[in-house]
Amino acid sequence: MDVALHLAKRAFDAGEVPVGALILSPERYIVAQAFNQMEQLQNPTAHAELLALAQACKKLNQKRLVGYTLVVNLEPCPMCAAAAMHYRVDRIVFGAYDSKGGGTEHGACVFSHRQSLHRPEIIGGVREQESQNLIKKFFQKVRTTSCQFLP
Amino acid sequence: MDVALHLAKRAFDAGEVPVGALILSPERYIVAQAFNQMEQLQNPTAHAELLALAQACKKLNQKRLVGYTLVVNLEPCPMCAAAAMHYRVDRIVFGAYDSKGGGTEHGACVFSHRQSLHRPEIIGGVREQESQNLIKKFFQKVRTTSCQFLP
Repeated sequence: MDVALHLAKRAFDAGEVPVGALILSPERYIVAQAFNQMEQLQNPTAHAELLALAQACKKLNQKRLVGYTLVVNLEPCPMCAAAAMHYRVDRIVFGAYDSKGGGTEHGACVFSHRQSLHRPEIIGGVREQESQNLIKKFFQKVRTTSCQFLP
Repeated sequence: MDVALHLAKRAFDAGEVPVGALILSPERYIVAQAFNQMEQLQNPTAHAELLALAQACKKLNQKRLVGYTLVVNLEPCPMCAAAAMHYRVDRIVFGAYDSKGGGTEHGACVFSHRQSLHRPEIIGGVREQESQNLIKKFFQKVRTTSCQFLP
């Protein structure tokens, strides 16, 4: 989570919503890391999780991530949660809960349906406060400087 | 839907789950089209919808698809439905309902929660039988030839 928070801070400095993600191998090595690039790539789906998952598969030259762990400082949205399902990750560890945009513990609750093709282990709330503070700080800054993140 | 089914048949011929998607502009012009490329790209998230949405934004050089329609021959999975939400498409038109993998009318029901950031109009069941037959035919073929699509 230390690395995820560091990546999130890099996102913050780049003017992105501060979310950082990494993929851990079964042996706990970092095989991929990314932070949000929605503004930089002008792509609303360029979420840290999706970028890290794709990067890991490319690097490992494999289609699935069975045995791997996704670590991210914010509860994944339904898109990223479902992507992690398609990649068959074993575990998702996240920092702050996201009652508005989250998709594992809130809203769509992607893994809580009998249709869920795969159910990774979910560990939420790891260093929750630090992540929450960072995200709060980012949106406070956005509100006082511009309206580029409004829908 | 004619074009989506044509794209789905191209996917079928390429050994991919037969799903084709396109993006229509507010004036009903096709701005992007794609079919599943999960096998070709060795990427389980290379769904027709995600590829078509990204292609449309790249082509139009814009970040969102407000006013645009996603047409696809199968009910989108939760990942693609949530991606369409992030892109802010106005409308999703799909062919066959997918009680196992679908994410708009089944399982996660991505747009049926108060957390849903954006709710496009959903029109399902358009030329449902044709799409269903194509998908059924594909999985019958897979079952008799190989097990590459098993989890």
